Amino acid sequence: MSDQHETPAQASVEDSLKQVMDLLARHRLVESLVHKQDMPRHELVELLVHKQNLAELRNKLDKLHPADVAYILEALPLDDRHLVWDLVKADRDGDILLEVSDAVRESLIATMNTRELVAAAASLDTDEIADLAMDLPKDVVQELMKSLDIAKRAQVESSLSYDEDSVGGLMDYDFVTIRADVTLEVALRYLRFLGELPPHTDKLFVVERNGRLIGTLPLKRMLVHDPEAHIAAVMTDDPVLFHPSDPAEDAAQAFERYDLVTAPVVDPNNRLVGRLTVDVVLDFIREQGEQDMLQLVGLREEEDLFTTVWKAAKNRWLWLAINLCTALIASRVVGAFEGSIEKLAALAALMPIVAGMGGNSGNQTSTLVVRGLALGLINKDNASRILTKELGIALLNGSVWGSVMGVVTYLLYGNAALGGVMAAAMLLNLIVAAMAGYLAPAMIDRLGRDPAFGSAVLTTFITDSMGFFIFLGLATVVLL
Amino acid sequence: MSDQHETPAQASVEDSLKQVMDLLARHRLVESLVHKQDMPRHELVELLVHKQNLAELRNKLDKLHPADVAYILEALPLDDRHLVWDLVKADRDGDILLEVSDAVRESLIATMNTRELVAAAASLDTDEIADLAMDLPKDVVQELMKSLDIAKRAQVESSLSYDEDSVGGLMDYDFVTIRADVTLEVALRYLRFLGELPPHTDKLFVVERNGRLIGTLPLKRMLVHDPEAHIAAVMTDDPVLFHPSDPAEDAAQAFERYDLVTAPVVDPNNRLVGRLTVDVVLDFIREQGEQDMLQLVGLREEEDLFTTVWKAAKNRWLWLAINLCTALIASRVVGAFEGSIEKLAALAALMPIVAGMGGNSGNQTSTLVVRGLALGLINKDNASRILTKELGIALLNGSVWGSVMGVVTYLLYGNAALGGVMAAAMLLNLIVAAMAGYLAPAMIDRLGRDPAFGSAVLTTFITDSMGFFIFLGLATVVLL
Repeated sequence: MSDQHETPAQASVEDSLKQVMDLLARHRLVESLVHKQDMPRHELVELLVHKQNLAELRNKLDKLHPADVAYILEALPLDDRHLVWDLVKADRDGDILLEVSDAVRESLIATMNTRELVAAAASLDTDEIADLAMDLPKDVVQELMKSLDIAKRAQVESSLSYDEDSVGGLMDYDFVTIRADVTLEVALRYLRFLGELPPHTDKLFVVERNGRLIGTLPLKRMLVHDPEAHIAAVMTDDPVLFHPSDPAEDAAQAFERYDLVTAPVVDPNNRLVGRLTVDVVLDFIREQGEQDMLQLVGLREEEDLFTTVWKAAKNRWLWLAINLCTALIASRVVGAFEGSIEKLAALAALMPIVAGMGGNSGNQTSTLVVRGLALGLINKDNASRILTKELGIALLNGSVWGSVMGVVTYLLYGNAALGGVMAAAMLLNLIVAAMAGYLAPAMIDRLGRDPAFGSAVLTTFITDSMGFFIFLGLATVVLL
Repeated sequence: MSDQHETPAQASVEDSLKQVMDLLARHRLVESLVHKQDMPRHELVELLVHKQNLAELRNKLDKLHPADVAYILEALPLDDRHLVWDLVKADRDGDILLEVSDAVRESLIATMNTRELVAAAASLDTDEIADLAMDLPKDVVQELMKSLDIAKRAQVESSLSYDEDSVGGLMDYDFVTIRADVTLEVALRYLRFLGELPPHTDKLFVVERNGRLIGTLPLKRMLVHDPEAHIAAVMTDDPVLFHPSDPAEDAAQAFERYDLVTAPVVDPNNRLVGRLTVDVVLDFIREQGEQDMLQLVGLREEEDLFTTVWKAAKNRWLWLAINLCTALIASRVVGAFEGSIEKLAALAALMPIVAGMGGNSGNQTSTLVVRGLALGLINKDNASRILTKELGIALLNGSVWGSVMGVVTYLLYGNAALGGVMAAAMLLNLIVAAMAGYLAPAMIDRLGRDPAFGSAVLTTFITDSMGFFIFLGLATVVLL
């Protein structure tokens, strides 16, 4: 694919984006002129300029790599995006739809009719069709399936049956197999007969007659070994294997660890069913990283920069609702001490500091624990060591920052007892924070959920409520 | 490399980790017995068992891929980690040091003497030596440089001169070049003469006599074309190029976008100076993602799960200090309204809700903006549209959640005016949050810093302080 179009690096993509935006601006300007001045004399001239801009734009787009067109579509507001999308040649629709983010894909698909969608999808490989099919309306998918031959339809159906985050959901069916009992010479002739190899092919898969995988033959080895050698002698027999049901995250870690470019996917009988390639793994890792960041603040992947206000607001509601609930509960803790606060309003000013420092410190712990759990580095044998270490840090940091705040409080309010309460509350809440930061993700993980999602909310909830309780409680007992 | 050792997937790595931990536990048990019972009769037997466990452990480690040994080292507490490290064969030290995280690498290097370190580094490629050298003591680096031949030393020095996050810092020097005027047959003979190709080689680089790059020759093309063809006719002439000073992030995006496996790096005169490979890019992307997550809570990369308490605490101080300062300022805002709080303590209970909802909402906006800036999707032409959209969402969410909280406040306190103040304050602070969430990263970006780092602190600081100010100020004016 990348051979057909310009494949410039980041800097030039941003240049392309600027050029496209300039052309769009010129187009919009002419368009507004045409609408404003209804003088027939000018009409023709302006229509020509108008068309010229669009022609230039189309020309520019045709020369860009599908991934770059996708990038430009992501950066454009909805109306400009649709205009550009209309200008893109129909035979490239499928490739571009695969490259854009889910949210942008949705906005593009909404502008296309069934015929266009089926045509766009039909130009793709079966694993790509399956990726796209998940976002298509049901009737389009039915239409699409009807247009495929039986073998392809079966592949698409099997692809669709796997979880999106499993190896089966990422694998493709583009591989070259070879038998072990032939010579390299024969294999080379076979490749020349094929004429073209699937993208990313760095090895052939060596299989038995029944389809069982027995090894792999890296292209590099084919090139440096004597053509008379038998494949059985040249192949490597310990390939890293995956099963369609393996979590994609495990495969991503294996690709990273063993520096793979492609890897075979086999069924329980060791029969070859598909292939994983590094480009798909790379996309997966990048998407996972982004999703983790977005999930931290309760944004689902499906929001693009120009989503409509209504859709975006709904997207963020669940998160805000959860946080409103936890904030309300913490607020009730404070409410229980309203009597104390009436007597000493300084407590109201100081309490957010205790809660906030606990939240920060607790989230430092929980971030490390979430990462350790994700990498499988934490198990029951070393868990207590990690918790002990975190408690030690909390003790140290709590003493240091508690003392600092104790002194600051004394300087601000000239009240030594208040300073002492502040120092003690900070220390205690940092210890609570270490426990919460450790236990929250561990608990969520034990429940079989992804700790990356809920840990921050839960930790902050505990450190807020407990921070208020410890500080106001201590103050009530000691000072009032 | 991956051909020499078992390369199992994630599940089996975790099995290996468990086996190693079992052997370590048995070893520790015997060790404690030997220490407790000083009976000479038993000594011999126990020493034997002792040695047997270690031998089994060493055996197990020898069979593991360096990346898997690295994984196991990361999961082990310091004492066990050092024991395992001592058992690893010296000739694998270099490869394993490259695979572990920076923090763990530091802990391992601390246990090695100059001779061991020089020996470990000397077994590596020049780009890998440069990676390692950054973490080695100065005198070891000097010793190491002396042990290299002139050509290698020059490469290491040039590698060290590039920024770690630039293409120069990631590239290697392991490539095969070929001239355009020979036939494929000649090229194939040349490869057979070389006997082995560098890892990840998916293409040869076609250069002129003076070293200028004129194209690339994918191995796939070599295999499927007629051996009589000239390379000039078979090569592709539009490779994606990088310069050593390009940001690594740009290269990573290009690898992702154009599905690359390797890419040439050239100097300003288009002379080939190095090569980027997808495995290094994959590691870079994963590390960047992790660093972003850790930076969000002020953890630098250099903390591993078993760092000493003292070191870890220091690592987290800067962040806690910054947050203490911002919390103090917000606390002073509350302090200014202590008079109002004394009259109506309910304000103290309600104010964290206004601040907290603003913080959540503002960080949703800033996360999207940080991502948009990182991908280059936000520029001056679409900036105002994004801000307008975020303000629209804030208006909508502020009205909805403000009303909800207004009603809840009324129900809790039976005070309609207080409910009204609450609703208005929520709405206003969500609008402040949208502006802060947009402007904070945009400003940090304009200053040439990474917005991923400071945006969350700055946004939260603004929403906290302004939340308190708006709510308490409104309450003072309206209610008291």
